Amino acid sequence: MKIQSLSKFKIPLNFRSRSLFIVQLWRFVNAIFFSKSPQLMYGWRRFLLRSFGAKIGKSAIIRPSVRITYPWKLSVGDYAWIGDYVDLYTLGDITIGRNAVVSQKSYLCTGSHDYASENFDIYQKPIVIEDGAWIATDVYIAPGVTIGRGAVIGARSSVFKNMPSGMICIGSPALPVKKRVLKHS
Amino acid sequence: MKIQSLSKFKIPLNFRSRSLFIVQLWRFVNAIFFSKSPQLMYGWRRFLLRSFGAKIGKSAIIRPSVRITYPWKLSVGDYAWIGDYVDLYTLGDITIGRNAVVSQKSYLCTGSHDYASENFDIYQKPIVIEDGAWIATDVYIAPGVTIGRGAVIGARSSVFKNMPSGMICIGSPALPVKKRVLKHS
Amino acid sequence: MKIQSLSKFKIPLNFRSRSLFIVQLWRFVNAIFFSKSPQLMYGWRRFLLRSFGAKIGKSAIIRPSVRITYPWKLSVGDYAWIGDYVDLYTLGDITIGRNAVVSQKSYLCTGSHDYASENFDIYQKPIVIEDGAWIATDVYIAPGVTIGRGAVIGARSSVFKNMPSGMICIGSPALPVKKRVLKHS
Repeated sequence: MKIQSLSKFKIPLNFRSRSLFIVQLWRFVNAIFFSKSPQLMYGWRRFLLRSFGAKIGKSAIIRPSVRITYPWKLSVGDYAWIGDYVDLYTLGDITIGRNAVVSQKSYLCTGSHDYASENFDIYQKPIVIEDGAWIATDVYIAPGVTIGRGAVIGARSSVFKNMPSGMICIGSPALPVKKRVLKHS
Repeated sequence: MKIQSLSKFKIPLNFRSRSLFIVQLWRFVNAIFFSKSPQLMYGWRRFLLRSFGAKIGKSAIIRPSVRITYPWKLSVGDYAWIGDYVDLYTLGDITIGRNAVVSQKSYLCTGSHDYASENFDIYQKPIVIEDGAWIATDVYIAPGVTIGRGAVIGARSSVFKNMPSGMICIGSPALPVKKRVLKHS
Repeated sequence: MKIQSLSKFKIPLNFRSRSLFIVQLWRFVNAIFFSKSPQLMYGWRRFLLRSFGAKIGKSAIIRPSVRITYPWKLSVGDYAWIGDYVDLYTLGDITIGRNAVVSQKSYLCTGSHDYASENFDIYQKPIVIEDGAWIATDVYIAPGVTIGRGAVIGARSSVFKNMPSGMICIGSPALPVKKRVLKHS
């Protein structure tokens, strides 16, 4: 049986959308200033991310332990939360809506490989978390997935397909199981 | 469809059971003295945790890479083990019994949110791991769960309900599958 | 019900295959030189691993965030890749073939405990990833498992049994679901 050959693997031209110099600069700024900033300095981290081309909304709460591969491919809406140790693997674009929550340890993965290609070609597909959705803790979201407005993805789920708006979705692979109903207060 | 509004989210009064000053002091002590201590200094880490109000039994083995949110909500019995990169997310109380084992990368999560509330209310529920139970590697335990005496939770399982004493339990969601029988030696 | 007693737990003689001095030396070298090396210094990390007895093939790509318990129990083939935050828990031998890929956050675990033993005896079983196989992101591989030549293990899967050559395998527990066919280019 023939197997993949990695010696001829190549990253496609402009895959990162920025020069290697900017990529290295972000890694340095992240290591020294972003990841080591005290938890309460949310404004400082929004400023750093915007400086590298991220679109970050008003009062968005992003913890210092969040890992962001390329900030220029990230968009976070007003009042959204990104919890501790979340991994935003932005080979492709990640868009997180207003009032959306991505809880700690969740992993949004926009990159993968074509396992049928001889040189293990890399590709990226965007991820969208719509307004008011909640990705609970330690959830995996696969490349190309959209999570609908106000949906809830239960803790430890793995999501490989789009999930509909306003539904509670759980499991691996995640499936919608019931409606989310907001109480009147 | 109406969605959650995070701009009015509030942590309930006394949710942390200590002042923000003590919380920050623990974060500092953890970063400098606990998480960077050499692996063999088990006595030193027991001392640090007890200084912050944790109940830690005789000879309990706790690795430096263990993450403990609020030590004053943690109780660990004699001879218990807590492995590398275990996450003890103690928004609520976590009680780990005598001779119990929590293996590396497991994640005990006592906090969550009410997804039906308009302001995404936070809550906490305690977790109890009874004497002699074994939480194998990379297991998730949800808020409010009790693992019975001597039970085994298999590697990579996710536990959302109480598990009975003396049973081997596996899967996501975890289910009891057979009795645990100790050999005579 | 009788429970395990950890006070008499003992690591078997020569379980680590090296003296505690060498183990500590590796931990130090890892903390200072390996884990903090810039991403592009692949040759330097191959040199460090070989100095501690690992067999590392030509052009093998190993990221600085990879965790390797005992390098002298690791073998990596030519052109193989080990991604970010991969955990190679080498209590037993881990062998990764030529042109094989272990993607980020995956966890190869060669050690466990006999839950039927009164003193919670530890054991190790080797893991083998054959040539050209791809372990996708955040996969768990249990002690004793062999992944066949050219097989693909899907993202977030958990593997508890040997997987056959040339098959796409997914789920928890992982099962083979279809053939992998390489396109002609």
